[in-house]
Amino acid sequence: MNASRAPVRQSSVRAHNLALVLQTVANSADRPSRAAIAGATGLTRATVSALVDDLIAGGLLIELDPAPRTGAGRPAAGLALASQGPAGLGLEINVDYQAACVVDLTGAVRHRFVARRDQRLLSPGTALAELGDLAVQARAAAEADGLVLAGAALAVPGLVAADGLVRVAPNLGWLDVRVPDLAGLPVTVDNEANLAALGELRADGAEPTFLYVSGEIGIGAGIVLDGGLYRGGRGWSGEIGHVTVFPDGRPCRCGANGCLEQYAGQEAVAADPDLAASALGIALSAVVNLLDIGVVVLGGAYAPEFDRLRPGIEAELHRRVLTADLAPVTLRPAALGSEAAMRGAADAVIRSVREDPAGWLAQAV
Amino acid sequence: MNASRAPVRQSSVRAHNLALVLQTVANSADRPSRAAIAGATGLTRATVSALVDDLIAGGLLIELDPAPRTGAGRPAAGLALASQGPAGLGLEINVDYQAACVVDLTGAVRHRFVARRDQRLLSPGTALAELGDLAVQARAAAEADGLVLAGAALAVPGLVAADGLVRVAPNLGWLDVRVPDLAGLPVTVDNEANLAALGELRADGAEPTFLYVSGEIGIGAGIVLDGGLYRGGRGWSGEIGHVTVFPDGRPCRCGANGCLEQYAGQEAVAADPDLAASALGIALSAVVNLLDIGVVVLGGAYAPEFDRLRPGIEAELHRRVLTADLAPVTLRPAALGSEAAMRGAADAVIRSVREDPAGWLAQAV
Repeated sequence: MNASRAPVRQSSVRAHNLALVLQTVANSADRPSRAAIAGATGLTRATVSALVDDLIAGGLLIELDPAPRTGAGRPAAGLALASQGPAGLGLEINVDYQAACVVDLTGAVRHRFVARRDQRLLSPGTALAELGDLAVQARAAAEADGLVLAGAALAVPGLVAADGLVRVAPNLGWLDVRVPDLAGLPVTVDNEANLAALGELRADGAEPTFLYVSGEIGIGAGIVLDGGLYRGGRGWSGEIGHVTVFPDGRPCRCGANGCLEQYAGQEAVAADPDLAASALGIALSAVVNLLDIGVVVLGGAYAPEFDRLRPGIEAELHRRVLTADLAPVTLRPAALGSEAAMRGAADAVIRSVREDPAGWLAQAV
Repeated sequence: MNASRAPVRQSSVRAHNLALVLQTVANSADRPSRAAIAGATGLTRATVSALVDDLIAGGLLIELDPAPRTGAGRPAAGLALASQGPAGLGLEINVDYQAACVVDLTGAVRHRFVARRDQRLLSPGTALAELGDLAVQARAAAEADGLVLAGAALAVPGLVAADGLVRVAPNLGWLDVRVPDLAGLPVTVDNEANLAALGELRADGAEPTFLYVSGEIGIGAGIVLDGGLYRGGRGWSGEIGHVTVFPDGRPCRCGANGCLEQYAGQEAVAADPDLAASALGIALSAVVNLLDIGVVVLGGAYAPEFDRLRPGIEAELHRRVLTADLAPVTLRPAALGSEAAMRGAADAVIRSVREDPAGWLAQAV
């Protein structure tokens, strides 16, 4: 029994240490040497060297020539994440466009594809077939660069069950849609505002607690509390687009009246930006009164409209948030702009490789 | 250095084990024997006996005679929480009443005092002086029973800073009020809906995730996620009373228009219960759309009005919650009824004794 246990423990220690070394390189401001990694992790230099060799062989790290000599002694070679190894395919389907991007292990966007077309005119099968074409293009572009897609993730504007079934996406007209493999890859499906919020959380200088609001034709939100996404009891939190702002107001596709979406969706913003800002301010005041969140990030189609929307939103927050005088709410545009959901999707794939390089190496062999 | 460390570690082990034994008794359906506690905790019988003796001497446990013999052998004596030892003083100040209760270590309410008077007519100093009189009565009643007050906690309808300063309680007209010692005891201050939600969480059969709504003249909420209270970035979550339901509606004391409080506060419920239920339903729909919470508990003055309010609330939830058809929301009245906040306050004191009996024993000596 001990004999059969030992290898399992050793391989699990190796998996842990591979991830530790990879994350140490990823989080370094400069290109650390093997010795610097040993110092930072507490692993021996021999262990670090063996792990680094495996990560280089698997296409996850590269070793760069030392910088030109500036002082005494021979500088050590530096390690960096490979930009030519595994990559993530990020997909997004929204009401009036489909999009795909390829993000490499360093987090750089290598390719973007956008197809603008009103998805409401398409059946789910047709929409997914068109998305499949976009995914095939993205895969070809990635492979032409020598990249290998480690996986695909799709952002949808709707309620997604834990097993990836899209239960309902009101603005697409989808009900219980199962997403097939696209471009030969299994696809992880998640709500677009959740993915965008996770993307934003990992952007430079992000706060640990904020509300991310994604404004497209529909409006969703991702609630980030203490560095983690709050998904709710069934994974369906953040439906700010269906928060009532005018109880007897405009009818919504969901069957209710006066939903935020009818006043601050992308089309409504274009038609009457002042009313949109005011409606957003009313709904955001509810969020702040309920959750005491001090930072609101506006993303999706709101990002380029930020300066135009800000005064109207702030006026409502000032008027309607009980604690406005004690602790003002900070509004800012999304760092990733309107690409946050698709980038968040690709990032989810990249993160899974970074967190489990052993899994990638086993599969790549 | 080792010599000075050892006693600290021993005393910390003893403190841990005292709490473990006390909790084991508290969580037992019947009266466990010393042997049963040893079995449940993994401690030796000798250790358990020494700890039990200390807990009995400190007034935290009692040992009861064995039940009459029903079979062969001599039944062991059983242990139970002492009802004559430490007790908690729970205090509440709300818009139209003050209340105090004494709760013993078993969780039983031993005394209740309520003084109905509109607090809005009083200065904070006068209100707190009157609350002090109530606390003195409660302390005298507790001591006449042979109880010793282990502490006092106060529930207030307002925003409380981490250091206990009441920053603002709009319906009391309080601004930056510091609560003094009452009846000779330092007082822990917390938001009334938070304390009520914690009280409700520990009631039998409570769910780990729910929204507690406390309806008095003002309305507050406690958000319980996965068995813990979500307090928000600055401790000011749950201000559902100031969620906008009718943007251009009735002016509120907070300076905004159309706050829930103006339509579903206690006075508004009496004047127009149908409108109150509808307004509550609109605000609760926002909470469920944002947080995906499946259970809403109505407490405070809502508890006795539950059957009257329910249909109107449910109609709005059904209409306005995006996931209403996928996963209905359960509404129920608070198990502790309108006493939840004051009970929650007393319970907070009792819990601190249960979690740190060593602290109590050191102080009682």
